[in-house]
Amino acid sequence: MLSHEQNERLVRTNKGTEMGELLRRYWIPALLAEELSGPDCDPVRVQLLGEKLIAFRDSDGRIGLLDEFCSHRTASLFFGRNEECGLRCAYHGWKYDVDGNCVDMPSEPPESRFKEKIKQKAYPTVERGGVIWAYMGEAGRMPEPPALEWATLPPGQVFVSKRIQETNFMQAMEGGIDSSHVSFAHRFDISDDPMHAGTPGLAYLKADTRPRFEVIESDGGLLIGARRNVDDDQYYWRITQWIMPWYTIIPPFGTHNPLGAHAWVPIDDETCWAWSINYHPTRDLTEAELASMRRGEGIHAKYIPGTYRTQANAGNDYLIDRDAQRAKKTFSGVEGIAAQDFSLQESMGPIVDRTKERLGTSDAGIIMARRRLLAAAEDAAEGKPVPGDQADHHRVRSTSVLLPKSEPFQDGASDALMVRPGEPFVSI
Amino acid sequence: MLSHEQNERLVRTNKGTEMGELLRRYWIPALLAEELSGPDCDPVRVQLLGEKLIAFRDSDGRIGLLDEFCSHRTASLFFGRNEECGLRCAYHGWKYDVDGNCVDMPSEPPESRFKEKIKQKAYPTVERGGVIWAYMGEAGRMPEPPALEWATLPPGQVFVSKRIQETNFMQAMEGGIDSSHVSFAHRFDISDDPMHAGTPGLAYLKADTRPRFEVIESDGGLLIGARRNVDDDQYYWRITQWIMPWYTIIPPFGTHNPLGAHAWVPIDDETCWAWSINYHPTRDLTEAELASMRRGEGIHAKYIPGTYRTQANAGNDYLIDRDAQRAKKTFSGVEGIAAQDFSLQESMGPIVDRTKERLGTSDAGIIMARRRLLAAAEDAAEGKPVPGDQADHHRVRSTSVLLPKSEPFQDGASDALMVRPGEPFVSI
Amino acid sequence: MLSHEQNERLVRTNKGTEMGELLRRYWIPALLAEELSGPDCDPVRVQLLGEKLIAFRDSDGRIGLLDEFCSHRTASLFFGRNEECGLRCAYHGWKYDVDGNCVDMPSEPPESRFKEKIKQKAYPTVERGGVIWAYMGEAGRMPEPPALEWATLPPGQVFVSKRIQETNFMQAMEGGIDSSHVSFAHRFDISDDPMHAGTPGLAYLKADTRPRFEVIESDGGLLIGARRNVDDDQYYWRITQWIMPWYTIIPPFGTHNPLGAHAWVPIDDETCWAWSINYHPTRDLTEAELASMRRGEGIHAKYIPGTYRTQANAGNDYLIDRDAQRAKKTFSGVEGIAAQDFSLQESMGPIVDRTKERLGTSDAGIIMARRRLLAAAEDAAEGKPVPGDQADHHRVRSTSVLLPKSEPFQDGASDALMVRPGEPFVSI
Repeated sequence: MLSHEQNERLVRTNKGTEMGELLRRYWIPALLAEELSGPDCDPVRVQLLGEKLIAFRDSDGRIGLLDEFCSHRTASLFFGRNEECGLRCAYHGWKYDVDGNCVDMPSEPPESRFKEKIKQKAYPTVERGGVIWAYMGEAGRMPEPPALEWATLPPGQVFVSKRIQETNFMQAMEGGIDSSHVSFAHRFDISDDPMHAGTPGLAYLKADTRPRFEVIESDGGLLIGARRNVDDDQYYWRITQWIMPWYTIIPPFGTHNPLGAHAWVPIDDETCWAWSINYHPTRDLTEAELASMRRGEGIHAKYIPGTYRTQANAGNDYLIDRDAQRAKKTFSGVEGIAAQDFSLQESMGPIVDRTKERLGTSDAGIIMARRRLLAAAEDAAEGKPVPGDQADHHRVRSTSVLLPKSEPFQDGASDALMVRPGEPFVSI
Repeated sequence: MLSHEQNERLVRTNKGTEMGELLRRYWIPALLAEELSGPDCDPVRVQLLGEKLIAFRDSDGRIGLLDEFCSHRTASLFFGRNEECGLRCAYHGWKYDVDGNCVDMPSEPPESRFKEKIKQKAYPTVERGGVIWAYMGEAGRMPEPPALEWATLPPGQVFVSKRIQETNFMQAMEGGIDSSHVSFAHRFDISDDPMHAGTPGLAYLKADTRPRFEVIESDGGLLIGARRNVDDDQYYWRITQWIMPWYTIIPPFGTHNPLGAHAWVPIDDETCWAWSINYHPTRDLTEAELASMRRGEGIHAKYIPGTYRTQANAGNDYLIDRDAQRAKKTFSGVEGIAAQDFSLQESMGPIVDRTKERLGTSDAGIIMARRRLLAAAEDAAEGKPVPGDQADHHRVRSTSVLLPKSEPFQDGASDALMVRPGEPFVSI
Repeated sequence: MLSHEQNERLVRTNKGTEMGELLRRYWIPALLAEELSGPDCDPVRVQLLGEKLIAFRDSDGRIGLLDEFCSHRTASLFFGRNEECGLRCAYHGWKYDVDGNCVDMPSEPPESRFKEKIKQKAYPTVERGGVIWAYMGEAGRMPEPPALEWATLPPGQVFVSKRIQETNFMQAMEGGIDSSHVSFAHRFDISDDPMHAGTPGLAYLKADTRPRFEVIESDGGLLIGARRNVDDDQYYWRITQWIMPWYTIIPPFGTHNPLGAHAWVPIDDETCWAWSINYHPTRDLTEAELASMRRGEGIHAKYIPGTYRTQANAGNDYLIDRDAQRAKKTFSGVEGIAAQDFSLQESMGPIVDRTKERLGTSDAGIIMARRRLLAAAEDAAEGKPVPGDQADHHRVRSTSVLLPKSEPFQDGASDALMVRPGEPFVSI
């Protein structure tokens, strides 16, 4: 439960807001690399943290990410001509390079030097892991490029999708941090998943339906441990990594399946991008796995063709199937892990009123993530360093392990929680 | 004509508003009984007076009407599992009984007593006349259950429908109180209706197109009398009952047809439920009558399948047919009594600006109903009794009668205006 | 670039605003004459400068333009019965003549004189050039009727269309004033147009792509001259007329084609009517020309059937065709001159934020038009005369001519810039 004022601080991300300025300290997943198909491709509209932008690759393949609206009379550069190393506004022909320089102004006399005074807002980008990332913060504070394991693997080992969610990013991310809901919202999906069948983890999970949660700070975010009783001596631990400001990694069952991860990025304060990633640290994804992911299965979602909007949405009550709910095929009647999450999260309204919550012990991860974000936002406002902006903070894994009851989970699992490039991950 | 401030007092019905608190002193028609199909049925969203609620029948058939949003993290209980005597939130499994008690909290440790501190908002209900009614006011002030004649007859004698109207409830109800408009908006429907053919009432109605209105207070609301000249000695009186806070009964032609009645209930301040009821005090409705009502004829409406929204709506100009208007098949070009009313009422905007009206003598019923509601709202704010909350106030009928010119209509028709269970009603 | 306050003064047009009161000093194109098909036709909703109105022809063919909402209880007169020299409200039968007099009030007793106190707001109209014009200002200040050349020609010489644009009227009109954008947004349409082929003007236009602009005040608005180098001695001048408050005439190529003109009229502050007119001063339009205009070609637009909304619109990204853009069939990827304009103008948002512009020398026409409108609005507020309200201000033409470099364009082209009824216009 937060005060109204705390809630506002947490959810507002436009330029000039406290949280918005914190988020601008990080590299931001902006669009799928494939959305910019190649040199002189179609310009693509992108909205991030309330700012409307236009992305393109120029004739040399360099990525431009500019203010969507031309400096001249604010027409959209969506209609621009992407040619000869720059994007030319379709209204009066002003042309910008990827750095936002106005390189041609044909509506003015040839001797005019007006164009030298014009600078279109432009943000730096990097391309990694099939994603184009943007840095929207102060030039002098740009962090190391994203080093998340999935962003650094060979392309064949990673699958990335994104979808639009009709909520604030925090509300979506809280679902990723909150491993407690898995036992309910996803109960029948998890327990019936043939991919998990036979793993000891699944057996432990089913044997103790009331896990205890322990949450501790990591260098870059949080470690959220859920422990279950196995016997007199051991706990079964499922440990989720939350990496500031918006990344989560799902604890796996066994090591044969790809790992799952997410990022939750504000479009504006009432919509966000939900990024979903599957990756395997030591092998290519199989054709069968990729086909399933492309169909929108697992943590991915089924789209309305030609959009990143989901087929299941508020307009159709998320295609709820009450018979499937009664038959215990799905817990909520909604099909698919992603849709189960976003249907519930969107049902709270675009910005949940956190003054009305009643939080329990199982909400410890959410409570601590909020605290850490609010504290970091204060630090950012004072120009201090912030967690999660260093490459080392990114090089972490989630895991599931058996540990002696006496051993703190962060110690017992310390090796399993680190990325060791090329080495198998640990999970039971 | 009202001041802006008076208009605001009249139309605002959220919790804490003066009118909202008055309306919470009454039983509120909440949903059709058939919408909750039986024990452990699908939960149904209900919005009343601005409050979003969820309705269900539990395993024992008891009706629950709870705050739609779970006390834990405010996910909608629409996705909840209705099973084993309670509704369980699909997000983390918190479960509520029909009284709003949290009866299970599986996300917390077994020894936790947190659930005892949780109380989901829950409103009492009664089921009568094919309708589930809710009481949303203070516990100590609950009135007698609804005793309207149509709510107390055997099921075979009653047909109830409801539709969504895109206006404030007052604007819709004023149409029900205002019998003057019948001679215009519904002229060709009334005069051509074979059901009325041959009744003396219809002949008198046609013979004098400019009735005089007399409105007097009844115990529970108003008696709105419209008188027409018959001869030197007699008036033909058509007398409408308005029962506080939102019920009307239409004066009949003869006694062979079912009676008609309405209720107008706020969903929020810009939409309302228009309830339409046909009933016959002394006989079952015939199959032909029921079939016609189910087709949306008479005072009922034709729906977009699967919804309570009408086929004729603002998006299609209410299917206006200018040829039918020219041919005097319909007065406004809109077909059907209900659509004729709501098309005109919605055309005023969702909340009519009553500072712009110019009211005449024929608007006396509307003027007095507003006064009575505003006065009762003040009384309610002071904790005083309010009209229309007693069973006796409900046991009334509308009528049409011939009376000597010298006789006040409320005296001459006093018997006809009372419900006499099992006895025929009076109408010419 | 304007201050926020200046921008607000420029774009707000409701009754009581400074610009709104200026615009009410002029005759306003209200609807196509054909929309009111004849005596006792269907009433048609019209919104102008934020006011909702209803238009009809009475039994004698006289045009009525009334407040849409009945004085009685504010139901829309759209549902009214247009019969026997008046429009009768469908709710309670109040009837108005074209002057707004309440000529029948059948809901009140016959002896009532209440109707004499009722006056429905009614605006005078004139019908000219296939258009019904309204005067919404003070009775004592009504200007001479519109005398634009296209409004005074025989019907066979004129074609008029209108479409809804989702922007403030100023934003749309600025596109009409701004002849600089033609070289970009419409480049391939102009240069490939077989209608212009072989005219000297087109050759000069292509030879010098960076015209200089000179803008001077005319009696009724502005003369916007764009000059291009031809040789050592001569300039090629293209001269656009802007007539206060919202008319433009496009400079022609040669004299064989019809002329083009526009009017931009506020519906409300976020939408406007874009009127497009083709006319030839000395001959009838041909069947082939009319067929093309009816298909929405040239300056006209293709409609969604049964509406004045365009097929290309924000909901479908204006049917952008990136292949056509790459192939240099269209500059912006959008097909059609009208759609090229409104796609860019709507992309700025419904009311462009003029504090963010960076204007150059080619924007001189826009800058001066804004100044003249703001100054005239101040004059209007002080009850002074305003430019553009006299018939002589309307009797002007645009032109394209060769002039000696030493000659001011307004002098050299002075004859060509005047309407000479029945005489050919001048253009190369």
